[in-house]
Formats: sequence, C-alpha cells, structure tokens
Amino acid sequence: MTATIINGTAVAERMRNELAAEVTRFKERHGYAPGLGAVLAGDDPASAQYVRMKRRACEQIGIESTAHVMDSSSTQAEVEAAVRQLNDDPKVHGILVQLPLPKQIDEEKILQLVSLDKDVDGFHPINIGKLAMKGREPTFTPATPTGCMVLLEEVGAKISGANAVVIGRSNIVGLPAAMMLLKANATVTICHSRTQDIPGIVKQADIVIAAIGQPEFVKAEWLKPGAVVIDVGTNQVDDPASSKGYRFVGDVDFEAAKEVAGAISKVPGGVGPMTITMLLHNTVKAAWRIAGE
Amino acid sequence: MTATIINGTAVAERMRNELAAEVTRFKERHGYAPGLGAVLAGDDPASAQYVRMKRRACEQIGIESTAHVMDSSSTQAEVEAAVRQLNDDPKVHGILVQLPLPKQIDEEKILQLVSLDKDVDGFHPINIGKLAMKGREPTFTPATPTGCMVLLEEVGAKISGANAVVIGRSNIVGLPAAMMLLKANATVTICHSRTQDIPGIVKQADIVIAAIGQPEFVKAEWLKPGAVVIDVGTNQVDDPASSKGYRFVGDVDFEAAKEVAGAISKVPGGVGPMTITMLLHNTVKAAWRIAGE
Repeated sequence: MTATIINGTAVAERMRNELAAEVTRFKERHGYAPGLGAVLAGDDPASAQYVRMKRRACEQIGIESTAHVMDSSSTQAEVEAAVRQLNDDPKVHGILVQLPLPKQIDEEKILQLVSLDKDVDGFHPINIGKLAMKGREPTFTPATPTGCMVLLEEVGAKISGANAVVIGRSNIVGLPAAMMLLKANATVTICHSRTQDIPGIVKQADIVIAAIGQPEFVKAEWLKPGAVVIDVGTNQVDDPASSKGYRFVGDVDFEAAKEVAGAISKVPGGVGPMTITMLLHNTVKAAWRIAGE
Repeated sequence: MTATIINGTAVAERMRNELAAEVTRFKERHGYAPGLGAVLAGDDPASAQYVRMKRRACEQIGIESTAHVMDSSSTQAEVEAAVRQLNDDPKVHGILVQLPLPKQIDEEKILQLVSLDKDVDGFHPINIGKLAMKGREPTFTPATPTGCMVLLEEVGAKISGANAVVIGRSNIVGLPAAMMLLKANATVTICHSRTQDIPGIVKQADIVIAAIGQPEFVKAEWLKPGAVVIDVGTNQVDDPASSKGYRFVGDVDFEAAKEVAGAISKVPGGVGPMTITMLLHNTVKAAWRIAGE
C-alpha cells in the first residue's frame, strides 16, 4: 500500500486564497484592514525568520502587520509595554508574541497579558484552560495543532472513537494537539521522553501526531497499517548531495512510512505551511469579532 | 496475589490531624482562622449534603466556613454577587462554588469570577490552563484528582514513565487527573464513552484511574497484574441484604480486582475522604498565601 500524501502546501494555498477574499470583504465593509502586531525580542535568527515569514504571509493576503523588535537585553517592563500598546491599538486585531522570549523575560506573565480578544496564538492560559475543559470553547486555538486538525479533516480521517497518539507534549504543539483530539472524541495517548515503549503505543494508533523534534524518529514498522500520520517535525540534517549541504526531514521516516500509513503529511510542505495559515485565519477571525460580527 | 488496599480514610485522617495543627499555628500567628466561603445554588439534595460535609470537615479542624445558600431560581447576577462578596471578604480565603449550578447559570462565567488567590477548587480556567501547560504551576489543583495523586504517592506507585490510563474525562476529575499524571511524567491515555477498546487499553496500564461513574465497570480481567488502581466512582446500587436497601460501589469490580491489582483503593473509604481533605488543604494554603507567607 502507498499512503495518500497529505499536501499541506496545497491546502494552505486554498485557505489563503479564501482568506484573501475575506480580507477584501472585511476592508470593503470597514474601511481598514485586519491587523497583526508582532513582538520579537532577542536575537534568535530563527525567530526573526519566522516573524518575517508571518508578516510576508499577512501582506500577501492583505492583513496589515507591525512589529515591535527588541534586542536580547530588553526588560520585562519593555516587553510588557509592547504588548499593552498592541492591546490598546485599535488597528491591531491579533497579537503574536514570538517564542522563545529572552531568558530574563517571564513568558507566562507576557502571554497572560495579551488581550483575550487578540490572542490569535491561543497561548493565553485562559484559552488553554478552555481548550482542555469539556464543554468550553477557547476563543482561539494554537496555530500548529489547529493546522494538524485541518489536515486530518482534509484527508477524511475519522477522529471520533479513533486511537490517537501524540508524540511530544510541548505547550505549543503536543499538548494542545492532544486536547483538540480529545475534544473531537478520540481516545488520546500522550507520549514523551519518559515513555517506555513508544513503538508499542504507536502500533495501536489510528492517528499519529509526531511532534518530538527528532529527525525520522518514528519508524515505518511502528505504524499500524492504514494509520493517518501527521508529521509536525522540521529537522535540519546534513545532506552532502544537496547544494546547500543540508535538507529538512520530519519526525517520521517518511519514505518507509508512506508504504505502511494510510495517509501521511510531507516535510516540508505538510504542517509547516498550515501553521502560518491558521495564524492568518485567527487574525481575520479576531478582526471580525472585534468589529462585532 | 492480593492487592494492597489503599485506605483513603486513614490517609485523610492523618492529613486532617496535620492540618488541624497547622490551623492552630495559623490562628496563633494571625489571630483569626482560615475561612472557606461556599456558594450553594439550587435544590439538589446531593449538593446540599456535600456542602454540609465540607463545612463540617472545616469545623472539625478549625477552619471557619460561611455559605451563601440560594434557591434554584437564583439569577446569574445573584450568584455573581455572592462570589464577588466572598472575593472581597478578608476573612474568606477559599471559595467553593458547589457544582452543578442551576441550568440558567453560566458556570464558566462564575468559575472565572472566583479570585485566583481563593480558587481552592482549582476550577478557574487560568488554573486549569496552567495545570495543562508544561513548566507552569497552577496556584491550586482540583481536590479529587489531587487526592488520587496523594494516594498513588502513599502506596509508592512509580508514576514517571508508567503507563497511566484515566477512564473518564470530566472537568472535575478525569481531565485534571490526566494532566497531573502527565506533569508527573506518566505516559497518559484518556478513555471515555467513545473509546473503542477500554479493556485492551486498561490491560497496558501500570496505573488506572477509574472516574466514569458506572458501577463496577472495570473488570478484574482487564487489569495488568500488579497495576495500581484508584477508584473514583461512588455509585449507589440496590442491596436487599443491607438495612438501607442499597450500598455504594466504585467504578471497579473491587472484590475480583483486588486479586489481580498490586494496589487498589476502596469505595467507600478511598478517594472520597481525600477529596474533602484536599479542599481543606487548599484552604489552609490559601490562608497562608493571602497572609503573605
């Protein structure tokens, strides 16, 4: 069997086209564009690159973006002031605090300061709490796991009653992914670095979300034939055959796994493009909500 | 093999004696007692009974308690006013909103109104969010799952790296229990009504938390020999042999299960007495915190 390859790039492109049309409608109706305000503190080149990519994606669909760029010596008070300014700015509808923040900054306090109406990353503890609780609905859900859920839906995966295994328990992917699967009535198992027998657990899974950040960690022989596999990892590995000397691989051994899985997302071109798309989606949603629609 | 029987009554009694001594120290130091304020709305006899039991337990260890008792027709504004009054009362350190609230009341709004410093039930979405997130610590954790964790510790269960299965995903037990086990580095599976093969999943578990509210649902033959079983259920079943005509049983078939499990909690006398004890514990903790210690 060869798996259906889940093409996140194509899904993201379709969604971004829809969002662009929605932004146009929003502008016609309100006379201004939805706005995203980013906070980038520190000098991590990857963080700076992510913020650039997110701002470029905004621009492409007509969302206006601003950024508070602060150096790695910025203080708690300065980062808080940046968030407060964005909270108060009527032209900003979504706030993106690029993580990680410099080590002297209390991340928890910063995320809790973001206005719930503008928490398009879904990382405010109230939104995480509502995501966890039965019968509650967070205003926004984190972009990456939401992108995973959209890809599962895209490929027609049956989630209710399925055995879903999430490998990794980060606050930005694994943990919220587990909660979203649980809310969708999957039986959810959360594996992590202390788990004794990940292969044995994965073998039971109808749905696997791999978000552990280790190149090609999940092997084909661990998979239940027909399982739907969403690969969140993006790991840079040496590749002398490539002109750049490296390439990106996921957390799943894709080439072998696609012969066992029923469906599997690509890396790159799977979850990656969905993450930014879901941030755009949340920003447009925030703009409509704040406009009272 | 016959399991170690986990006697929650004995653990609770020991903890309550320690708490009584702590309350005495608190009073000597501050000249007033820790205080619990309860909100009871509606005419559910079980809820009224729970509040009575909790207040009696407070009294026994020297915590002062007050209760706002409102009838089933109380309005959102009235319940909110009761919570606000308790938030503002300097002699109240812990607030207990007895659930369920009457159906016209927005439970989510009420729980979110409780001062974080007084949220001794741990149900504020910020506390649930922090419980869910890695690297965050809620101020208070919900009483029943905390009681389960204490019993696991009491029996020397190794949690880190263990396979833990939580049956049930309620906001007050199953869901926070799963999060607490995950924080303690267990590999956690959450089962519920949509789960396809609960017996097969339980068979893998080193730790089982049964919180599904169905009498003797978990069978002995589902258990892995030596598993530690915490039974949260308290189900009333007919019993013509009893003078009352009924008795209480747990969610686990105790008599058969104790021949397979390594350790198992009793019903009654297991998790039940721990729940109120953990509420008392949280109230004393809240009083010290508010007093700045």
